[in-house]
Amino acid sequence: MIGAGGVATVAAFKIAQNADVFTEFMIASRRKAKCDKIVEDIHKAGYKLDIKTAQVDADDVEQLKALFNDFKPELVINLALPYQDLTIMDACLACGCNYLDTANYEPKDEAHFEYSWQWAYRERFEKAGLTAILGCGFDPGVTSIYTAYAAKHHFKEIQYLDIVDCNAGDHHKAFATNFNPEINIREITQKGLYWEDGKWVETEPLEIHKDLTYPEIGPRDSYLLHHEEIESLVINYPTIKRARFWMTFGQQYLKHLEVIQNIGMSRIDEVEYEAPLADGTGTAKVKIVPLQFLKAVLPNPQDLGENYEGQTSIGCRIRGIGNDGKEHTYYVYNNCSHRAAYEETGMQGVSYTTGVPAMIGAMMFCKGLWNTPGVHNVEEFDPDPFMEQLNKQGLPWHEIHDGDLEL
Amino acid sequence: MIGAGGVATVAAFKIAQNADVFTEFMIASRRKAKCDKIVEDIHKAGYKLDIKTAQVDADDVEQLKALFNDFKPELVINLALPYQDLTIMDACLACGCNYLDTANYEPKDEAHFEYSWQWAYRERFEKAGLTAILGCGFDPGVTSIYTAYAAKHHFKEIQYLDIVDCNAGDHHKAFATNFNPEINIREITQKGLYWEDGKWVETEPLEIHKDLTYPEIGPRDSYLLHHEEIESLVINYPTIKRARFWMTFGQQYLKHLEVIQNIGMSRIDEVEYEAPLADGTGTAKVKIVPLQFLKAVLPNPQDLGENYEGQTSIGCRIRGIGNDGKEHTYYVYNNCSHRAAYEETGMQGVSYTTGVPAMIGAMMFCKGLWNTPGVHNVEEFDPDPFMEQLNKQGLPWHEIHDGDLEL
Repeated sequence: MIGAGGVATVAAFKIAQNADVFTEFMIASRRKAKCDKIVEDIHKAGYKLDIKTAQVDADDVEQLKALFNDFKPELVINLALPYQDLTIMDACLACGCNYLDTANYEPKDEAHFEYSWQWAYRERFEKAGLTAILGCGFDPGVTSIYTAYAAKHHFKEIQYLDIVDCNAGDHHKAFATNFNPEINIREITQKGLYWEDGKWVETEPLEIHKDLTYPEIGPRDSYLLHHEEIESLVINYPTIKRARFWMTFGQQYLKHLEVIQNIGMSRIDEVEYEAPLADGTGTAKVKIVPLQFLKAVLPNPQDLGENYEGQTSIGCRIRGIGNDGKEHTYYVYNNCSHRAAYEETGMQGVSYTTGVPAMIGAMMFCKGLWNTPGVHNVEEFDPDPFMEQLNKQGLPWHEIHDGDLEL
Repeated sequence: MIGAGGVATVAAFKIAQNADVFTEFMIASRRKAKCDKIVEDIHKAGYKLDIKTAQVDADDVEQLKALFNDFKPELVINLALPYQDLTIMDACLACGCNYLDTANYEPKDEAHFEYSWQWAYRERFEKAGLTAILGCGFDPGVTSIYTAYAAKHHFKEIQYLDIVDCNAGDHHKAFATNFNPEINIREITQKGLYWEDGKWVETEPLEIHKDLTYPEIGPRDSYLLHHEEIESLVINYPTIKRARFWMTFGQQYLKHLEVIQNIGMSRIDEVEYEAPLADGTGTAKVKIVPLQFLKAVLPNPQDLGENYEGQTSIGCRIRGIGNDGKEHTYYVYNNCSHRAAYEETGMQGVSYTTGVPAMIGAMMFCKGLWNTPGVHNVEEFDPDPFMEQLNKQGLPWHEIHDGDLEL
């Protein structure tokens, strides 16, 4: 596993909890001390799995190759930054490793994500007899598997898909992002995009929003965003007439976001800046990306767990033609408690809901259930064993048939 | 003159306009190119004064001394940063130069300003036969001179003093500060302070505010801040029962300020940060003060002049016992148009209202009118010749006798 942030911590805990499936495990990241800390916490919590750790710069293919050739992993779980997907895929191809990630590649100098870069690896993985599983977190990931499950069991034809992501938690901070602030702010400040009648429709950032009612939570203002799973779902389910993604934001959050943009701190270009060297030997002219520096002063999402109250609710609201030939609606969702996630893994619910599916995806691969050479989005695999594990591994799902979808 | 920002640009223009008084003039700053640019602009505008320029680091007493010994200025006009007041005063003492500034010293690592550090130089300036004129901008500066003028001509006893500072301009930017954002944000985010019944009363930052009506502008929400001129005025006018300072802020400005604080970008401590070197030779660990970095991405106050509409209105509202033994009120103020300031000097009104008084203070010194060895706040000098120049130099004042002060 590459990465040692909040999601990686959760995935590592869940891997340690499933030591019957995962017999050998290594955590590698830019800072080895962070990996060692995760292992220490896992062992403190009473899990016995022997876990190796290593230092690696995931931007550097040669370093990755040296590490892979040394440890010889069957599967590389990529929980590093989205910028690093391609270097890790390159190293996997070079070393004969299978691959899994949770977020699609985006170039560092452009706030823009799409699967094309990773899909371009299809033939190479296929020829090498290697499996790459893309987007196996919650959204993308579970939301795609929910859709596959609905298609398999409940619908002849999925026509309308709305993925709804609500975080009704309260971390008691004036402002903090729930995952890497750099990635979070890039995602939210870009234009909205949804699929309708065979084409993409672009919106201004956060232009479309409406109150949606979430189970056990109530109504929350929800904003239409572009989200990567839509891109593959409309290809894999061509009967879909409209597919959208919605995420809740509070007024306080949006106010902070607006100001961060107004004052220039969401910029992703480099600013030249002269600063004193930390070792006191003078000053140096450095290049600073404002959004990356902002990340250094914002609360670390990994530290939000304590005192984080409330829950997340993420699911799929689907309308289409059921197996009986009539129109039906279907809402499948999970609610996750920030506190329960923290008590189990030391991390809040947003990390938990991403880290658990990453582990289950790896389990599907290791059990030989999701094992098809090539590059695949998760909805291309059998959803049933994955859905079964969701219930066992801490992310139980619920269904509402023929309810009001509000959409 | 040390400094080459907006205020320094205005002061230099006004010095060039008064070449009968100022016969030899040098502008020095950390970046000589900025000084040369000011001279170029002044000559382009048709003024003929020969102006020298030089490079100097105002943090470095030895550099300052070398420069002063070379140019031998009679008076050093300090329009650099408030952190640099003491190094410049030290160099003045060492080289036999008189001194004038517009803002009192504050230590770099503490958002706290008071005159004590500079008043500690009194005896040394006195013994050296040198004059130091402190706080000769608009506020402090003109507001203190307004008070001295009121005391000289209209009041036996000043009892209540409210200094009111309104900027009703619109620079058409989402957020920008009117002078150095670092100094501006430090000033506003500290606790409020006012003088009442012989002691200082502290408030939370921006805790006390009320609508005040400004001439030609109308009502504006005005916030009680600590401002340095109060400190010397209540000593020099011991009859004052209450002295306060008010400044207007719009809701948009305050929203941005709140968020800047919440996200940690107003911090003035150092954050260790690893960044690529601008010359491409690797990375370096540097120490960055978030508020200083923010300054690098916010609009430069010097660039606000174009399209800046509206005006500033700054004045003193005074209540006390008049020379006739009866209670009177007196409101003396100046309104300054951002556009007119820009057309004359290329700078907006906030720079203009500070730069013009700095020049007039220097003129008072050069004419031998404000020339008393020691360290003095401006109200200790004769206000009449200064008030006369305000009318001639672009900052005419107006009086309202016995009006409703609202305070």
